[in-house]
Amino acid sequence: MEERTAMSFRVSGNEIWVLDQRALPQEENWLPSKTVNDMIGHIKNLVVRGAPLIAIAAVHSLAQLAEQGASKEDLLLAKKVLLLSRPTAVNLANAMHSLVSNGTEPDPEHIAKAAAKLFDDDVAMCERIAENGAALVCQGDGIIHHCNTGGLATAGIGTALGIIKRAHEQGKRIHVFVDETRPLLQGARLTVWELEKLGVPYSLIIDSISAVYMERGEIQKAFVGADRIALNGDVANKAGTFNLAIVCRHFGVPFYVAAPITTLDPYAYAGASIPIEERDAEEVRGYQGPGEKIFWSSKNCCVRNPAFDLTPNALVTAIVTDVGVYSGREIKSGCLEELSQDILPTC
Amino acid sequence: MEERTAMSFRVSGNEIWVLDQRALPQEENWLPSKTVNDMIGHIKNLVVRGAPLIAIAAVHSLAQLAEQGASKEDLLLAKKVLLLSRPTAVNLANAMHSLVSNGTEPDPEHIAKAAAKLFDDDVAMCERIAENGAALVCQGDGIIHHCNTGGLATAGIGTALGIIKRAHEQGKRIHVFVDETRPLLQGARLTVWELEKLGVPYSLIIDSISAVYMERGEIQKAFVGADRIALNGDVANKAGTFNLAIVCRHFGVPFYVAAPITTLDPYAYAGASIPIEERDAEEVRGYQGPGEKIFWSSKNCCVRNPAFDLTPNALVTAIVTDVGVYSGREIKSGCLEELSQDILPTC
Repeated sequence: MEERTAMSFRVSGNEIWVLDQRALPQEENWLPSKTVNDMIGHIKNLVVRGAPLIAIAAVHSLAQLAEQGASKEDLLLAKKVLLLSRPTAVNLANAMHSLVSNGTEPDPEHIAKAAAKLFDDDVAMCERIAENGAALVCQGDGIIHHCNTGGLATAGIGTALGIIKRAHEQGKRIHVFVDETRPLLQGARLTVWELEKLGVPYSLIIDSISAVYMERGEIQKAFVGADRIALNGDVANKAGTFNLAIVCRHFGVPFYVAAPITTLDPYAYAGASIPIEERDAEEVRGYQGPGEKIFWSSKNCCVRNPAFDLTPNALVTAIVTDVGVYSGREIKSGCLEELSQDILPTC
Repeated sequence: MEERTAMSFRVSGNEIWVLDQRALPQEENWLPSKTVNDMIGHIKNLVVRGAPLIAIAAVHSLAQLAEQGASKEDLLLAKKVLLLSRPTAVNLANAMHSLVSNGTEPDPEHIAKAAAKLFDDDVAMCERIAENGAALVCQGDGIIHHCNTGGLATAGIGTALGIIKRAHEQGKRIHVFVDETRPLLQGARLTVWELEKLGVPYSLIIDSISAVYMERGEIQKAFVGADRIALNGDVANKAGTFNLAIVCRHFGVPFYVAAPITTLDPYAYAGASIPIEERDAEEVRGYQGPGEKIFWSSKNCCVRNPAFDLTPNALVTAIVTDVGVYSGREIKSGCLEELSQDILPTC
């Protein structure tokens, strides 16, 4: 495979290494991924996370397997189980769709090239999203951000957080309200870590306090990422996005979704057809850091823990992509459906 | 002092014991409170919490000091520091206002009797709130509840959670959505613990996912408590209440606030004049259970951590008190101001 390095992903020869995002910010541990099973474990356990990075990591895992001389049958099976590892992130499906198919014999070099291209495309897409999005940020803006959408979630500078990085570099005096993003605390652990490295002023807040700062006029915009976007503009993203969008609407705070156009699901007309992954109750019952698992509620208490939610298009001010910014009005008049023609896999 | 026992508070002779709510549900530790300083520590550290119980505990602490033969000066000072221990809970101020004053010599027996009466009144108020509120609950209701408002927060069966208990006893088939209530997880730790004891069906959810269940039609009502209510009906309550009220409004889910009438602040015309306590950043940076403190974000990260927020009267469907249920319309036409005449301390 071609050599590539991102903030939390490295490939060199036949080796893949991933930064264990569960241990951040306390520890920076790089873990090897020697097999497809390793990678599935890393994705399921959130060692690797972020819709764009999941796709890049999974395709490299497939390229690694092909280089190791796997048969077509093995590659087809590997593709299938990789696709099931995080059912909501659509980039994964988009990226893998035509790479290994029944019809043709697998070509390791072709798959490796496709993996490297996916990486490079993501870097470039992040840059374009950042450019497009930073134009929406004004001098002095307070920006609320959900989950982690930065260099840790992509091969490049990130999506929503890439926009924030770019606006900061442009000299816009911004302040980021980082919501902690329960249950897995990607905001508190990862976004804070990235913003500190970038030197962007921020305040960490609990997820449920955003209204206070919107009412005080301290928040002018919201930027979030997306795991999958339906053709009608409904957005599947990390649990907590829908509540945030409602609070933004209440105060008239523009709510922007930033994602590469590959996040569009050409097979989902509306959000209702997007599968929402329900994760382990233990994520809510306590905390699993690098050390021992801690429970704060009773160990068998009843929990409902969807990993994602669906924000209806009506609450989305605009979707910021690498190929343009699409307003709620444009989305309503079907622009995403038109765009989807370009990314529909030809199969 | 007269003997009294509540779920998390016991008094006998000159002894006061409090159940350490920080260690629940893992451990049930009763801690002594031998001095006013002990009690201030217990209140500040949330060993004792819940606006009604804070007032009861503080007044008993004053009664304990009086029994120990303290001078008027000592009692006045003790009253002053106790009042500062949790600035947002108004029951404390209401309860202590006329108990120790400059004018008269302190009478230990009088203070002890007042403390016991406060306890008994709270038990009775909880019962009346439960009766008034349970009438609003329908067969099959899904109810969302924030923080902890049960037997742990009062001398009686609680406020919002007392209503839920009563509705359950009346045979109404209800399901409670318990939001975990970051940062101190009173929902996950305490409300789950109480509901399990009561046998009421519930699901623990993260604070930011309520919209998902409202959209699916699984939540018909919200019941929360209050730490202080302004005369215009603005409600100071645990951080996260305002966001929840906005989400309820978005879906047309009635939002009920349950509290004894003593939660009314006769000196606050609107919410803006209620002081909001900002608590330690460490509460958000990690978790402090019975064991070692855990950090999940960087140890020095910037945090904003108001303990309470203000829900404007416009988002409140009704306030359920021990003396009646007051609709948003009645509140707008000034009913709370009239009621406040009865509880204004005569000084």
